[in-house]
Amino acid sequence: MTDAAVRSKKPATNKHTPAGGAPAAAHTAEEAHEPRIDVDAVTDLLLGTWSQTRREAREMIKDPAFWRIDGQPMPEHRERVLNQLHLLVEHGGSRRAFPEEYGGLNDNGANLAGFMELVLADPSLQIKSGVQWGLFGSAIFQLGTRKHHDEWLRGVIDLTIPGAFGMTEIGHGSDVAAIGTTATYDPDTEEFVIHTPFRAATKEYLGNAALHGKAATVFAQLITGGVNYGVHCFFVPLRDDEGGMLPGVTSEDDGVKGGLNGIDNGRLAFDHVRIPRFNLLDRYGQVASDGTYTSDIASPGRRFFTMLGALVQGRVSLDGAATEATALALYIALTYANQRRQFDSGAGTDEVVLLDYGKHQRRLLPLLAQNYAQFFSNDELLRKFDGVFSGRTDTPEEREDLETLAAALKPLSTWNALSTIQEAREACGGSGFIAENRFVGLHQDLDVYVTFEGDNNILLQLVGKRLLADFAKQFKGADAAKLASFAAKQTAGRVFHGAGLRRLGQAVTDFGSTARSVELGLRAEQQHELLAGRVEQMVADIATRLRPASKASPAEAAAIFNANQAELIEAARAHGELLQWEAFSDGVNRIAETDADTAQVLTWLRDLFGMHLIEKHLAWYLINGRLSTQRAASVSRYIDRLALRLRPHAQDLVDAYGFAPEHVRAPIASGAERARQDEARAYYATLAASGEAPVSEKSLKKK
Amino acid sequence: MTDAAVRSKKPATNKHTPAGGAPAAAHTAEEAHEPRIDVDAVTDLLLGTWSQTRREAREMIKDPAFWRIDGQPMPEHRERVLNQLHLLVEHGGSRRAFPEEYGGLNDNGANLAGFMELVLADPSLQIKSGVQWGLFGSAIFQLGTRKHHDEWLRGVIDLTIPGAFGMTEIGHGSDVAAIGTTATYDPDTEEFVIHTPFRAATKEYLGNAALHGKAATVFAQLITGGVNYGVHCFFVPLRDDEGGMLPGVTSEDDGVKGGLNGIDNGRLAFDHVRIPRFNLLDRYGQVASDGTYTSDIASPGRRFFTMLGALVQGRVSLDGAATEATALALYIALTYANQRRQFDSGAGTDEVVLLDYGKHQRRLLPLLAQNYAQFFSNDELLRKFDGVFSGRTDTPEEREDLETLAAALKPLSTWNALSTIQEAREACGGSGFIAENRFVGLHQDLDVYVTFEGDNNILLQLVGKRLLADFAKQFKGADAAKLASFAAKQTAGRVFHGAGLRRLGQAVTDFGSTARSVELGLRAEQQHELLAGRVEQMVADIATRLRPASKASPAEAAAIFNANQAELIEAARAHGELLQWEAFSDGVNRIAETDADTAQVLTWLRDLFGMHLIEKHLAWYLINGRLSTQRAASVSRYIDRLALRLRPHAQDLVDAYGFAPEHVRAPIASGAERARQDEARAYYATLAASGEAPVSEKSLKKK
Repeated sequence: MTDAAVRSKKPATNKHTPAGGAPAAAHTAEEAHEPRIDVDAVTDLLLGTWSQTRREAREMIKDPAFWRIDGQPMPEHRERVLNQLHLLVEHGGSRRAFPEEYGGLNDNGANLAGFMELVLADPSLQIKSGVQWGLFGSAIFQLGTRKHHDEWLRGVIDLTIPGAFGMTEIGHGSDVAAIGTTATYDPDTEEFVIHTPFRAATKEYLGNAALHGKAATVFAQLITGGVNYGVHCFFVPLRDDEGGMLPGVTSEDDGVKGGLNGIDNGRLAFDHVRIPRFNLLDRYGQVASDGTYTSDIASPGRRFFTMLGALVQGRVSLDGAATEATALALYIALTYANQRRQFDSGAGTDEVVLLDYGKHQRRLLPLLAQNYAQFFSNDELLRKFDGVFSGRTDTPEEREDLETLAAALKPLSTWNALSTIQEAREACGGSGFIAENRFVGLHQDLDVYVTFEGDNNILLQLVGKRLLADFAKQFKGADAAKLASFAAKQTAGRVFHGAGLRRLGQAVTDFGSTARSVELGLRAEQQHELLAGRVEQMVADIATRLRPASKASPAEAAAIFNANQAELIEAARAHGELLQWEAFSDGVNRIAETDADTAQVLTWLRDLFGMHLIEKHLAWYLINGRLSTQRAASVSRYIDRLALRLRPHAQDLVDAYGFAPEHVRAPIASGAERARQDEARAYYATLAASGEAPVSEKSLKKK
Repeated sequence: MTDAAVRSKKPATNKHTPAGGAPAAAHTAEEAHEPRIDVDAVTDLLLGTWSQTRREAREMIKDPAFWRIDGQPMPEHRERVLNQLHLLVEHGGSRRAFPEEYGGLNDNGANLAGFMELVLADPSLQIKSGVQWGLFGSAIFQLGTRKHHDEWLRGVIDLTIPGAFGMTEIGHGSDVAAIGTTATYDPDTEEFVIHTPFRAATKEYLGNAALHGKAATVFAQLITGGVNYGVHCFFVPLRDDEGGMLPGVTSEDDGVKGGLNGIDNGRLAFDHVRIPRFNLLDRYGQVASDGTYTSDIASPGRRFFTMLGALVQGRVSLDGAATEATALALYIALTYANQRRQFDSGAGTDEVVLLDYGKHQRRLLPLLAQNYAQFFSNDELLRKFDGVFSGRTDTPEEREDLETLAAALKPLSTWNALSTIQEAREACGGSGFIAENRFVGLHQDLDVYVTFEGDNNILLQLVGKRLLADFAKQFKGADAAKLASFAAKQTAGRVFHGAGLRRLGQAVTDFGSTARSVELGLRAEQQHELLAGRVEQMVADIATRLRPASKASPAEAAAIFNANQAELIEAARAHGELLQWEAFSDGVNRIAETDADTAQVLTWLRDLFGMHLIEKHLAWYLINGRLSTQRAASVSRYIDRLALRLRPHAQDLVDAYGFAPEHVRAPIASGAERARQDEARAYYATLAASGEAPVSEKSLKKK
């Protein structure tokens, strides 16, 4: 050990030469004699279209008043987060999405971009804000009309009306169409009667329901004149000014949850609660005083999905927040991995820095690449959202594309958040389990992101059905035999362009021209062909297998669909991965025009993401003859090489997230570890110099 | 909806006929007209060799005093768990492992079997017990000698001496040999001076350190006569009877953790703390009053590993506890999945039970199979542990095998616990996120199991090195060229039997003879051949690639090893999976002699586990020519079929865990869901009968 201490006085820059230590690895781009990324330029790139708003939000949450306090008991945490919402109002953070006439900024993209950043302060703050302004407020704004806006929007924005969003019921989560709550119109009094007919129809998991909500937007089956017109949304007052429940309204507390305990989730039940006819949010369906129902949308199904679609922003926002939280975990784990040392390498030098280990590179760097992809794809999603909700591109097709894109991306980014945060926590050992180092809190809070605002599997199933529908459009008019022959020859995919954002024909000119890929690997166009080809073929294969269902009995058809359910979800996942990869490539291309060095490193990172995806699905590529066994065998080694190549850039790449110490707050990423090592080294050096250092038993035996 | 309500009055037993509903699925063995398992017999099989002790422990923890209270603030939780330890003492639960002369039972296997069950009550209780009796007490017992036992064991057992286990330091976790704490012998006073020379040498993450510990077993570099004899263990008093710190001892609190907040983890630092020579736990190394060091084990390395090996029981116990916790999560999720309904199937019947969905079967049933395998492999590990620690089979070879087995199994079961609990929580949607339904608490508490008592990756690396060593033994004397030719021809694997518990030649006679496998799938002997062959070839391949390291410089050798690190860990994982599969097969064979029906169902479950493993590594099998693409393509479909076949047995299989309501405690697994559905159905039926049910807008339009 004293030997090591003496040697460790060598300057760290020698570490990457084989003589200076092993495993041999450069720790910085400079040491590797390689182009270095322009960290600030990459920050701009990652923060995307609304970078200005995001920077403002990050500046605001440097105030410790916004930070999560680990271990704070639930009641105090709930009050703290409510106060944070008031603080947010003071900072003007609640009004961006709403129209100018109510004090808003009418800036939808900026609004979500700003909200996403709140996850760095406390995910409870992000989600409770989302409940108030993204769900409760949005329901009034999107599903209501001018009169409702005049009546309530100012109170929503300034938080004088904290509200709950009453969609989910105990008995029905994802299946909103089947909810049991009824809103029966009474023409005599011109009122709706809101009623919970049985326990399973109790509204459940609603933020602001247990304590703070003064009103709720309640989804219920609208019944008038003996006809059920399906699910509509109603504004229902809950509590009086003293916080007492209004007559007929019952609230229960959900109690402790796995995370997000700063939010007062609870249940709401209604016992024949009467509200004025005015309180039907009637943009998509109206009831006249005599009870006559009217709607611009004749189809009940389309009307229902239009109403739900108006609330897509929750998914857009979760995709971004999950991406941010993942970035924070990677920043902490990779910064620590660049400082922490463990085990002598056997080469008789200083202990090895964690990130020099092959396994450590392997476990973290592909996740970094994936997270970069998510930043780019989220910005693309945000832009599409902003286009539709600003009215600039508000067509039915764009709305449908937006919903499909959100349904494809939100599941991937929220699942990736959990697995990445967990891997990051494990990569930091026991330190990763201590709350102050952030991982465990992030994991606990983000856990529910994968099942709320659309259960991830259900969302992917929706995407899968959309892919099938797009596929079927290609063959309108073609007979079954022709279709089957297409699929059998695997040429079906060639005429199916619904898989990604780009057509296959574009690949060669768009990819790989700006910066060279790592030697011997799969080039950009090959990665794209593999990723896109997989989506296309999976969809074509499933379509072929589902074909008999069209002539089967309903029960048999359901059984056929059920047998293909898992694979349809897998196809949708493949589609989402392709979209992420394409967005990443577009991002690299954007910077390539001005900064070849940065583009070079980002191209390696994009390649790592592509190869990581291909490795994940390697068996599929082999079985389907898309990769030879020789080629497939080289994928793993290629990833190893890419990881090794990116290792010196790791710190730059996480620094480019642009987090300030007030966002990070994790002691293990503060440099304390390095300082402790320096202290230990100094101790051993002094001891050695004193001549009083004990000799080792081993060296004694040698004598 | 009213239509559905009317139809739902049909008896549930009709559900599996195609006409009665879709997706068509039998919910019970009876409905499927299939053999049913003998639930009680399977419980006996799962509880294994020490089932009696486990039942006693389960009976004890029916007392709510042992249960975790969700959301309890940390200070109260810590006091509660300390009190639970006293309760455990009263129940005689703390003495099983210790010798009769100190009031013990000298029953090592029973001791661990009983402790594992505590995880059902509160994992903090399990781990704090482990700290006191499994680590602190064991160190005194295993590393000390008679005089130490006489002095302290009674106080350890009756908890008058709560203690901490001081091995890990801030600067060194897994690398124990490099710890910085010193114990310098002073012959003048016949004392050891325990000292923390720098901040990184502070003892870290120790249960009982922050508050309750009166003493600690402290690992330190033993220095006497100017020579460092390496790491030894010392008994160091920490606090006086009033709880005040003794002179020179400093304690810090680790504060809030990701889970296990009922344990007072903290840091300990020593400023020249003097302890009597007596306090060296001197079973493996002694210091005479004049400072002369003696040991029966001449090699410092072997002595160090012998001392660490004496503490293997922590890993054995975590393997079992992780298996139990996983079982609980599966019990809750599968019971709920058998009751909860969501979405109409489109076949116009009642809503579909979750477990009838293809995706739901796919996500949960392979994990059930995996968990069964873990019960069997943990019992095998327990038996090996009991043999060695009882002295019956205490040979160096058996000790080494025990350590390797524990190092192979603990990582798999603890990782599986996290991924299974998470999948189970997601499969229950929002309900899964509410603390009272158990999943989130289990995940939070078990999170650290994957990095403590040996970081999982480090343990697997140890296993990998053992596999390499066993492999090398086969070729002692063979020259390099011969070895290379062996590996190149892939025949090397044939002469390497270190992979599993059984030799390949045994396969045909041992497997598959007792119960038929599902038609068309891979039979037991083929599964074994694939699983064992993979371990063998991976090890042989890595050995070939590592060969140049023996003639390389230390730095180059380290780099070569580093390039193969991730794959070595993967080979070790494959070895662990093989051991689990073999143990599962042995378990099935045991019951096959007396109960063919049960064995039939368990054989399907074992097949599902085997196929699940093969699917996970399908790319490897294809690349290495072990499976044709046609065969590989059928693996997924075969798993689907097995899952469908096991679906009617799912409730029986989780009932066989033998949990009582006091162990489960999750409202969603209580039958409340079914009761709510019945209430909703009754409401709609009454409404329909009244003639006042609203008609749907759709049916109106049809008119």
